[in-house]
Parts: sequence; C-alpha cells; structure tokens
Amino acid sequence: MRGELQDELARVTSSLVTMAKAVREAMRQASTALLAADPTLAQQVTVRDAEIDVLYRVVEDRIYEVFADRSPDPVDLRKVMTALQVASDLERMGDLAVHVARSALRRHPVPAVAPELAHLFRAMSTIADELAGKIVSALADQDAELAGQLDGDDDAMDELHRRLFSVMLRPDWPLGVEAAVDGALLGRYYERYADHAVNVGRLVMLLSPARPAEHA
Amino acid sequence: MRGELQDELARVTSSLVTMAKAVREAMRQASTALLAADPTLAQQVTVRDAEIDVLYRVVEDRIYEVFADRSPDPVDLRKVMTALQVASDLERMGDLAVHVARSALRRHPVPAVAPELAHLFRAMSTIADELAGKIVSALADQDAELAGQLDGDDDAMDELHRRLFSVMLRPDWPLGVEAAVDGALLGRYYERYADHAVNVGRLVMLLSPARPAEHA
Repeated sequence: MRGELQDELARVTSSLVTMAKAVREAMRQASTALLAADPTLAQQVTVRDAEIDVLYRVVEDRIYEVFADRSPDPVDLRKVMTALQVASDLERMGDLAVHVARSALRRHPVPAVAPELAHLFRAMSTIADELAGKIVSALADQDAELAGQLDGDDDAMDELHRRLFSVMLRPDWPLGVEAAVDGALLGRYYERYADHAVNVGRLVMLLSPARPAEHA
Repeated sequence: MRGELQDELARVTSSLVTMAKAVREAMRQASTALLAADPTLAQQVTVRDAEIDVLYRVVEDRIYEVFADRSPDPVDLRKVMTALQVASDLERMGDLAVHVARSALRRHPVPAVAPELAHLFRAMSTIADELAGKIVSALADQDAELAGQLDGDDDAMDELHRRLFSVMLRPDWPLGVEAAVDGALLGRYYERYADHAVNVGRLVMLLSPARPAEHA
C-alpha cells in the first residue's frame, strides 16, 4: 500500500513535469512570435495553453485519485497540496504566455515590440526560458538546490523590468502612447511569469526530499 | 470525531471570511488613496496586506491541523484543498491592492489617475468593492448562488477595461506616455483583482452545501 502511494505521487510529479515543459514551450513560442511578429506561431500558443489546461485537470484528478481509497498522513497531504499549488502556478504561466502571444497578434503586421525595446524583451524572454527550464529540471529531479536558485534569477528579470520603464518614460521616448502601453503590459506579463516561476521554486523546495524528517 | 472535524472546517471558513473582509478593505483604501492622491491611506494598504499574508498562514496552518490527527475522506479533502485555493486567490487580491496603492504613492503629489480616466477608475473600484463584498457574504453564508453571480459581474469590469484602453489609445489622448502607462497597469490590476474574485466565486460554489451528494 505504502509503495503504491509513492507510485501515485510520482505520477502526479510526472504530470507536473509534462506541464512545466509545455509552459516553457508556450512562452518560448510566444516570445518568438512577439519578436518576429509571427502570427502563425502566436496562434499555436493558444493551442498549447489549452493542452496545459487539460494537464492541470489531469493533475487535479490524479491528486484526488491518490486519496480516493486511502487516508493520507500529514506529510503526504502536505506534498499533495503543494503539488496542487505548483499546478496552479504553471497554469497561470501558460495564461501569461497567451497574453504575450495575443499582444503579438493584436498589432500584426506591426511588431508589438518597438525596435527601441527589442533588446530588453529578448533578454526578458531568455530569462523566462531559463527559469522555466530550471523548473522542469528541479521538478523532474526533485532538486531543492536548483529550485532555490530561481529566487536569485528573478532579480535579473526585475532589473530588466525597471530598465524597460526607464526607457519608455524618458522625455525623448519617440514612439508614442500605444508602443509604451504595449511595452508596459508585456513587461508585466514577463515579470509575473518570473514571479510564478519563483513561487514554483519555493514549492518544489518543499516537495523535495532534502526537507528534513520526511518518512523518517 | 465527525462533529469536531466539521467544527475545524468551519474555523477554516471563518478565517477565509476574515481574510476576504481584509482584502475588500485593502482595495477600498487603495482606490480611495488612488483617486484622492492620499499617501497616508496608500501606506495603510501595505500594513493591511501584511495582515492578509498572516491570515493566509493561519488558514494554511488550520488546514494542516485539521488532518494532523485524523484521516480525511475524499469529500473533506476536496473541501480543504478548495479552501486553500480560495486563500491563495485572496492573498493575490491583497497584493493587487498594494500595487494600486503603490501607483498612488509613486506619482504623489500628482494624482496617478489622469482626470480623463477618473470616472472609469471610480467605476472599476466600485465593481471591485462589490465583487469583494459578494465574496465575503458568499463565504460567510456558504451561498453558492451568490458565488455564481460573480462571473457575470466581472463582465462589467472587462467592459470598463476595454473602454479605458480605447480612451488612452485615441489619437487625441492629451496626457502623454506616463499617464497612459500608469492607466494601463492600473487597469490591469483591477481586471486581475476581478478575475481572482471570479475564481473565488467558482471555488465557493464547490465548497457550498448546494453541491449534491455531500455527506449524504
């Protein structure tokens, strides 16, 4: 019985890994669509997000199945609740990728990112991809140390976010209101994506075996 | 034993009600601070958000305590997980109130809301307050019907959000980039606040006794 429970929890984690990979790919496609003003790619992000939403339901269902015919001890219960919170953050990250993709579509064929801001968004998308990559690995390997790195990585995103606003709010900003509004919202999407990634990192630290006194 | 469990679940719900009241008050203060450019009130929102974060931990701890010395059946487990998701949405709504308050502080003594946009933000803050008020009542009374209304109420927020952007992106927008960037971000904070409120509504519908086959 005990062995089976561990198998089922492992299946929950495996769904989270699949979800995290899909979230990473969604933001990668959204960023490429944004920077290359590619509407076909932008539309694919919506399809991928629908897959992510399905995976979220799979995780939820698996979690409820885990306890359908057994009583959890407090440690398992905490793990399961943590897994549910991870799934919820990942689902939100998928939504944010869709927001980025929609911004790309809204201005098509004009690029939604002004040339003056392209280098900043390229850097933000690189950090977003690195954060998502670390989530995939940290979940797959239950690596608390890697998960703990996400907090520090997010500082780079915050710094880019600050630079973005300082560029747009300079008196000599040449591109008008629409480009600045797009830039502000896009910046916020990337910043929130990173915030959720950091949150997942904290949760994975709770899930990982490095935590003391588990199943002692 | 069964009776005790129900008492403990009721205590979890009671903490959620307290949290929802604090979240409502935080956004109410933030909106007043924003529209009246009142820095003292804006600062109070941060204090209130710290209280909300403490309440979030209280809810979490109570949830874990519920199962510290007993095994949940699947129905109770689902309730508890739902309560945890409600707490997480409420915590986010508190953060969004802080974002609104910070916008008010950032431009002080200049109002962060341009006079051209004040009527829209007044309307958005009214809807935000109504949504939060319904959450408080729906949680307190376990009222699935009231919780179900939140989805429709959110449409009014979305419509105001659209009007906000149409005003700012008009070619004759007179107030420049900074006012538009502020407007775009503030609009997003209210819209997200409403999204979380709708999500809480859906969760409260799951928590409420109207749901069939509970404790049959």
